[in-house]
Amino acid sequence: MTERFVVIMAGGRGERFWPQSRLHKPKHLLPIVGRDPMLSQTIARVLPLVPAKNILIITTRQQLAEVRKASAGLPRRNLIVEPVGRDTAPAVGLAMLLVKQRNPEAVFAVLPADHVIQDEAGFRTLLDAAFQAAGSADELVTLGIEPTEPATGFGYIERGKVWHSGPPAVLRARRFVEKPSLAKARAYLASGRFCWNAGMFVWRVPVIAAALRAHAPGLHAGLLGLEKALRRGSPDRALARLYPALPRISIDYAVMEKSRNVLVLPARFGWDDVGSWPAVERHHGKDADGNVLRGRAIVEGGRNNIVVSADGHITAVLGLDDLIVVHTPDATLVCPKDRAQDIKLLLLRLAADPALKQHL
Amino acid sequence: MTERFVVIMAGGRGERFWPQSRLHKPKHLLPIVGRDPMLSQTIARVLPLVPAKNILIITTRQQLAEVRKASAGLPRRNLIVEPVGRDTAPAVGLAMLLVKQRNPEAVFAVLPADHVIQDEAGFRTLLDAAFQAAGSADELVTLGIEPTEPATGFGYIERGKVWHSGPPAVLRARRFVEKPSLAKARAYLASGRFCWNAGMFVWRVPVIAAALRAHAPGLHAGLLGLEKALRRGSPDRALARLYPALPRISIDYAVMEKSRNVLVLPARFGWDDVGSWPAVERHHGKDADGNVLRGRAIVEGGRNNIVVSADGHITAVLGLDDLIVVHTPDATLVCPKDRAQDIKLLLLRLAADPALKQHL
Repeated sequence: MTERFVVIMAGGRGERFWPQSRLHKPKHLLPIVGRDPMLSQTIARVLPLVPAKNILIITTRQQLAEVRKASAGLPRRNLIVEPVGRDTAPAVGLAMLLVKQRNPEAVFAVLPADHVIQDEAGFRTLLDAAFQAAGSADELVTLGIEPTEPATGFGYIERGKVWHSGPPAVLRARRFVEKPSLAKARAYLASGRFCWNAGMFVWRVPVIAAALRAHAPGLHAGLLGLEKALRRGSPDRALARLYPALPRISIDYAVMEKSRNVLVLPARFGWDDVGSWPAVERHHGKDADGNVLRGRAIVEGGRNNIVVSADGHITAVLGLDDLIVVHTPDATLVCPKDRAQDIKLLLLRLAADPALKQHL
Repeated sequence: MTERFVVIMAGGRGERFWPQSRLHKPKHLLPIVGRDPMLSQTIARVLPLVPAKNILIITTRQQLAEVRKASAGLPRRNLIVEPVGRDTAPAVGLAMLLVKQRNPEAVFAVLPADHVIQDEAGFRTLLDAAFQAAGSADELVTLGIEPTEPATGFGYIERGKVWHSGPPAVLRARRFVEKPSLAKARAYLASGRFCWNAGMFVWRVPVIAAALRAHAPGLHAGLLGLEKALRRGSPDRALARLYPALPRISIDYAVMEKSRNVLVLPARFGWDDVGSWPAVERHHGKDADGNVLRGRAIVEGGRNNIVVSADGHITAVLGLDDLIVVHTPDATLVCPKDRAQDIKLLLLRLAADPALKQHL
């Protein structure tokens, strides 16, 4: 069997869950859902399929200390620091180089670090099938999430003909499309032919290398230079020198939208990317008034609030509905659920003020 | 000149400013307005008129430690602990006994500990005139606040004929009336004949003693017993034994509404009892959006909020108007300004829960 690797992308910026998430502690380092950090849950989820020595994590300098804590079972050298964020295609390229150093013929999965997956066994069955498909063919393989609503926050993947009847079924992907309008999203959902693109890919080193060479030649050339430098000396120094020069581009745009050899495995394993505070609600019990209360939180005469209170501090909400109230030891947020996407406006204020920057 | 005393009533329960105020630290022990605790401001305000040795404070066991800190210039023995709250008439009776022990002919003022007074010199001019009137006649004297709005949260005092033309003018009080309906409050304001009852009284010991004997004989009899016990031994023990048996009744109802020998000095010295969080607004600067911000507080896209944040913690409000958000080291409150009077509902929840009681 082709040797298998998993590369976990753990470099998010942690804006949407402020103040629980921070620059040095974004969502994948928090137990937003469940008891352990999302990254630890992601590692535990793949360990039955792939040995710890073959699980790599790409993260940032700021997050390294916390990533170490959340990935205690992995060899230290499997934690790779991206010197700067350069979007997903350079990160995938770096993942490819790292796997190639270990085994140039290996098959590897690229997985986000911060998703919720309820049916872990179902996930592994599908990932195993994806490894088999990618390991045995010159195909770019992706897990596509069966949509449950006309979401406009994800890209979509249109399915084509059956490639392998399964189970689980493996289909040709006809095309990748970017985040749609609501009207388009509704049409996609109604057609029954689309999956959400959740950023979960599986491919062999030579196959993704060929795809990068064909569709993103600038990036591919940069990766060749980086590969040479990595062979010669310190990875940190090579990355610091060459990684920032790679083009900032997403893997969807650089490769997936342009490739014809793409397979998709439609997935129904209770997936949720938990993109912001309001999404947290789906994963927690509510009181009789629809409030999600974590820690020492109380709501009097209010409905459908999310109230999170840390470290024995009490956070009390009186006579208000549909709010997000999150207390942490050094920062508290109060905002309506439907303004959660504007938390970044607050963070711009903090970033602009030397006295407040420490709370980012 | 008749010897003068001031007795400051410092026993409030601190519900309306939770979580800044607590059972052991109610409003008069906080710098709700200004830099010093309201009690310290009250003491400083009368010190030019009355020596420290003649300023007494009646407080509670829970608040004693903080009251000591806030009244550093006063002799320790001038701090008297009410073993239980028994409303204002027993407290006035106790004040009378304490002053009588020192000088049975003295004149004394009863003042709340937690009011804001902007024109301190004007206040002293009026209090001095009240001391003169009460010291020279068998009258119960009160300072009545010239109303600025049809408030329904105060009792009112109707003025009668001129007793002394002044300045400042001293008038007969025709009657004390309890907190009115809004319609009545409007009529009182329009008539120009009413003042607010702010609980500020001045009288000689024999005059208030006679009024209590005449109008509240049960309370008066209890006070006679307490007086004897105080003469015999430890004040704490005497109070613990006899004070709880005194009838629970207000001085307004027990004496002021029934007495004919009442004088009132109409006051215009920028008075505010700062009864709840919304009242705090009047005393603080606002940002361009009408927000009152204290400590490390920011509001993004919101208007007319009061946001208070303690100890370097940042409290950030996004996209919300007309809220009270108060952070303290162990508790945070979020409520609309127009629900401030219902903070007590929250406190009942805390009181009922052994795990949360500590936050009261």
